[in-house]
Amino acid sequence: MKWTTHCAAVATAMFVVTSLCLSPAGRADDAASPVFGVRLPEGYRDWRVISVAHEAGSLNDIRAILGNDIAVKAYREGTRPFPDGTIIARVAWKYVPSDENNAAFGQAQSFVPGPATNVQVSVKDSKSYADTGGWGYGQFEGGKPNPSEALMKTCFDCHTRANKAYDFVFTHYAP
Amino acid sequence: MKWTTHCAAVATAMFVVTSLCLSPAGRADDAASPVFGVRLPEGYRDWRVISVAHEAGSLNDIRAILGNDIAVKAYREGTRPFPDGTIIARVAWKYVPSDENNAAFGQAQSFVPGPATNVQVSVKDSKSYADTGGWGYGQFEGGKPNPSEALMKTCFDCHTRANKAYDFVFTHYAP
Repeated sequence: MKWTTHCAAVATAMFVVTSLCLSPAGRADDAASPVFGVRLPEGYRDWRVISVAHEAGSLNDIRAILGNDIAVKAYREGTRPFPDGTIIARVAWKYVPSDENNAAFGQAQSFVPGPATNVQVSVKDSKSYADTGGWGYGQFEGGKPNPSEALMKTCFDCHTRANKAYDFVFTHYAP
Repeated sequence: MKWTTHCAAVATAMFVVTSLCLSPAGRADDAASPVFGVRLPEGYRDWRVISVAHEAGSLNDIRAILGNDIAVKAYREGTRPFPDGTIIARVAWKYVPSDENNAAFGQAQSFVPGPATNVQVSVKDSKSYADTGGWGYGQFEGGKPNPSEALMKTCFDCHTRANKAYDFVFTHYAP
């Protein structure tokens, strides 16, 4: 009994230490992205539209780029670099023809969202993410972060290809 | 002087009568659509996203379909017919390739919004618009209603081609 109590105490202590050590970096946190520890922001689906886009090729998706209040304000006012607290959520769905709409229009012209693919989240925090231009990243599938560290390491490499004047962001505001 | 005063009174009365007679139908109202008297809703660009789409062919646009709170609630809960007060705003932009994104990706794959084309607004009011399935319509270019009565008369004809179960609406909710 004494041994069991001792073990339980040690196990609890180990759990606490592990959580304290690893949660801030997101490594022991199932809800946060690897490398950056970015979480899917609550209520992001209610955010305002920054823009929309279609990516053809292997992605073959149609997407809405949404922003929290700080992001939308910065976009509308042209503030660059984006202020800390900016969060951009790119929501994407498979790009599929709408047979229903095409039948109504009498021709094949309509492409709409199919199943959701993933949500990519960019968080501006110039101190926490100083090594990646002030941006932390996450990719979420079915609400869960993609666990690949290798994938996360491609985020900033790709975003460095965006026009520098836009602070490592591809999307422009669509008025 | 007496005549002038009389004339002014008559002119004022005529203005009031004209306004009273014509404003509700929108015909004497520069801010409202012909036939339906629908106005561009204040703050519509801040509304939540119902879905996105690409229409090819002669439209050649990329679009966001936004909804007021009543619309989004009805969409998320599957309420049909849509309740009175529902407003859906379809915002469209020219569909253009993004040379900037394509250069970053190393291939032609990215299509984004160009200049705004128009905003189409559907308003549910089962009493006012009983003859058109409960829907009133407007099309706005540069913030102003398209003044064509003929154009407005095509709205409901087209929307009758939508699946009846969706209450004369083409767009489905993209989760």
